[in-house]
Amino acid sequence: MHIYDLDTPALVVDLDILEANIRDMAAHCASIGIPLRVHTKTHKTPEIAKMQVAAGSQGITCQKLGEAEVMAAAGLDDILIPFNLVGLPKARRLSRLAQLKRITVTADSLATVEGLAQQLGPDGANVGVLVELDTGGQRCGVQSPEAARDLGRAIMDLPGLTLKGILTYPSRPEAKPFLERTLELFDEAGLPHPVVSGGGTGAEAISKELGCTETRSGSYVYEGMTRVSYNDFRPERCALRVICTVVSVPTHDRIIIDGGQKTFESYPPVPYGHIIEHPEACIYGMSVEHGHVDVSQCTHSFRVGEALSVIPLHQGKVSNMHDELVAARNGEIEAIWQIRGRGRVR
Amino acid sequence: MHIYDLDTPALVVDLDILEANIRDMAAHCASIGIPLRVHTKTHKTPEIAKMQVAAGSQGITCQKLGEAEVMAAAGLDDILIPFNLVGLPKARRLSRLAQLKRITVTADSLATVEGLAQQLGPDGANVGVLVELDTGGQRCGVQSPEAARDLGRAIMDLPGLTLKGILTYPSRPEAKPFLERTLELFDEAGLPHPVVSGGGTGAEAISKELGCTETRSGSYVYEGMTRVSYNDFRPERCALRVICTVVSVPTHDRIIIDGGQKTFESYPPVPYGHIIEHPEACIYGMSVEHGHVDVSQCTHSFRVGEALSVIPLHQGKVSNMHDELVAARNGEIEAIWQIRGRGRVR
Repeated sequence: MHIYDLDTPALVVDLDILEANIRDMAAHCASIGIPLRVHTKTHKTPEIAKMQVAAGSQGITCQKLGEAEVMAAAGLDDILIPFNLVGLPKARRLSRLAQLKRITVTADSLATVEGLAQQLGPDGANVGVLVELDTGGQRCGVQSPEAARDLGRAIMDLPGLTLKGILTYPSRPEAKPFLERTLELFDEAGLPHPVVSGGGTGAEAISKELGCTETRSGSYVYEGMTRVSYNDFRPERCALRVICTVVSVPTHDRIIIDGGQKTFESYPPVPYGHIIEHPEACIYGMSVEHGHVDVSQCTHSFRVGEALSVIPLHQGKVSNMHDELVAARNGEIEAIWQIRGRGRVR
Repeated sequence: MHIYDLDTPALVVDLDILEANIRDMAAHCASIGIPLRVHTKTHKTPEIAKMQVAAGSQGITCQKLGEAEVMAAAGLDDILIPFNLVGLPKARRLSRLAQLKRITVTADSLATVEGLAQQLGPDGANVGVLVELDTGGQRCGVQSPEAARDLGRAIMDLPGLTLKGILTYPSRPEAKPFLERTLELFDEAGLPHPVVSGGGTGAEAISKELGCTETRSGSYVYEGMTRVSYNDFRPERCALRVICTVVSVPTHDRIIIDGGQKTFESYPPVPYGHIIEHPEACIYGMSVEHGHVDVSQCTHSFRVGEALSVIPLHQGKVSNMHDELVAARNGEIEAIWQIRGRGRVR
C-alpha cells in the first residue's frame, strides 16, 4: 500500500532517510570518539530505539520514567532517565524497573536521592545516579561544583544508589570551568565519576572537548525544520512527515489541509511545515484541526482530495500527538509501529 | 484518595466547577433562546458530553470523524461533524457511523459531497449536510451566497445526503449580510434550511441575533486562561488543572515542576498556567518535560516534593496530550475517565 492511500492525517517515517540519519550519527560519533546514548524523546518508538542500539548506541535516554518503562518492556536495557524522580509512586515504579534493567537517574537535591533510597534500599534494588549540573540551562541542576561534590558524597552514603558521575545540561564551551572544577572536587573527595553525560544533537564534538563520556543526541534521528532551519534546511534529510489531504480549496490562493494544531503543533514560526510536493506553498496558519496554506506562489492547480506530504516543524512534539507511526520506503508501507512512549507524561 | 496523592503530572477536573459551568451555559442559552449543540473538542471525554446533553444540549459537535466514532460508541447520538470529510476511507467510516446514529456533516465543495454520495448512496446510508460559509474565518467555506445556493442545489440531487441548511464560522456581526442573502437565495431556490449552525463560547447572543438555530459552544466547559484572559480571569471558574510536583528548587527564585511542553503546550503567552496555591508564582518557561517557575514574588518557601495545581493556558490542547482525566470534588477523587477522543486525528 502506498502512503498516498492512507486515511489522513497519518504520521509516516521514511525508512531510507531514518536509516541514513542513524548510520551517519553513529559514524560521526565514532569518528570523534564519543559514545552515543541516544535520546528517545524524539520518536518514543521502541522499534527505532532498537535500530539505534543496533547501530552502536551504548544505551538509551528517556526523559520520563513512563517512557523508560515502555522501552524496557519492549526489550531495551541500560536506560538513563535524566530527571529528578520525586514522590513515593515514582520511587516504587523505579524500584520495580531497576530490578529488571540497568537504570541510571539524575538528581540535584538531597530530597530527591533520599526519597529514592528510602524505597530502593529496603527493596534491595539499585540505580546509578548522576549529579546534574546547571551549566547554563537555568533549569534543574546544582549551582556550584561544591554543591555537586556534597550531593555526590551524600549519594555514596545512601542505600540503593550508586554514584556514577555527573551530567551537564546544556553542553556548551562555557560549561568547561564548572565541569573541570567539579571533577577536581570529586577526585579530591574520592568520589567516582566514570560517567560524564553530555551532548544533544549538534553538540557531539563540543561534548567530547568538554570531557564527556557520552552524548545524549536525539533529534538527529528525524531531523526537522526546527533544528536545521538555522543551519541549512535539507528536506532530503528529514525522515518524518505527515500525509495530509486537501479538504478545501476556498480561493485560488488558499488551500486547507486536514491537519492543524492537534496533528502538528501550534507553535510558530511560520511556515508550520514544508510540503515536499510543493515547496513553494506556505503553511502560514494552524487552527485546531485545519492547516491553512498559501498557494499563491504555486503554478499547480490544487484539488480537493489531493494527498500532500508535510515535513513538520517540531518532530518530537508531533510524535507526541499520534498513536501510530507508518514506516515506509519509497512511499510503500513496510510496517505500522505503535508510538508506545507517547503520552507517558509520568 | 486526594488529588495531592496522585502520581504526577495528572490531569484533573474539578466536578463542582465543571457542573456549574455546564449549568450556567445551559441557563444562558435558554434565557437567550438559542439551543446548544456542545462542541466536545475541549474535553474529548464521553462522560462530560453526556453531562452536557443531560443539561439540555440538543446533540454534540465533534471536529473529527474519529471523535464522533468514539462518542457514538459511548452512546451519544445526533452528532455534527463540521468538517469536509474527504477520501474513500472516511466515506466508508461515515457510512458505517450513519447507519447507527444521526449524523450531520458540513461541506464547501462539490468534490466533498460527490465523494460522500458515491459511498453513502449505494450503502443506503444518509447524513445531513450543512453548507459551510466562510464568514470571515478565511478557513473553509464557500465564498459567496450564490456559491452556497449552487452547492445546496447539488446536495439536493445526490443520494445519501439530506440538505439541512448552513453553518457559519465564525459567528460575528459582520456575517449578517452573507447569512441573510444566502437564506434568501435558498428560499428562492426552494432549498430547505432548518438548521443555521453558529456560535462558539461567547458568541451565543450574537448567534441568536444572526438567526442561528443552534450554538456550537465548547470551551466554556472548562474555561481557561486563554479565553478568559481577555475578559476577567477568574480561577474559580476554571475546571481543569494539572497536578504537578516540584522536582527541583535550584535557586531561591526558581522552581522546576514535572510538566512541560508535552504535558501542557509550548505556545505562549506567559504565564503558561496559573498556580492555584501560589498565584504570585509565574510559569515563565516550558522545556519539553519541565516547567520553569519564577517564585521571586512568593513568600512561601518551596520544597522538592510539593504538589501544585496548575490551571493550564490551553485547556483543549492539554486534554489532547493526556489519556486519562481524574474527576475530583473538593480534592477527593470520584472517578477516572478515559479521554477517548484524544489522538483521533482522523
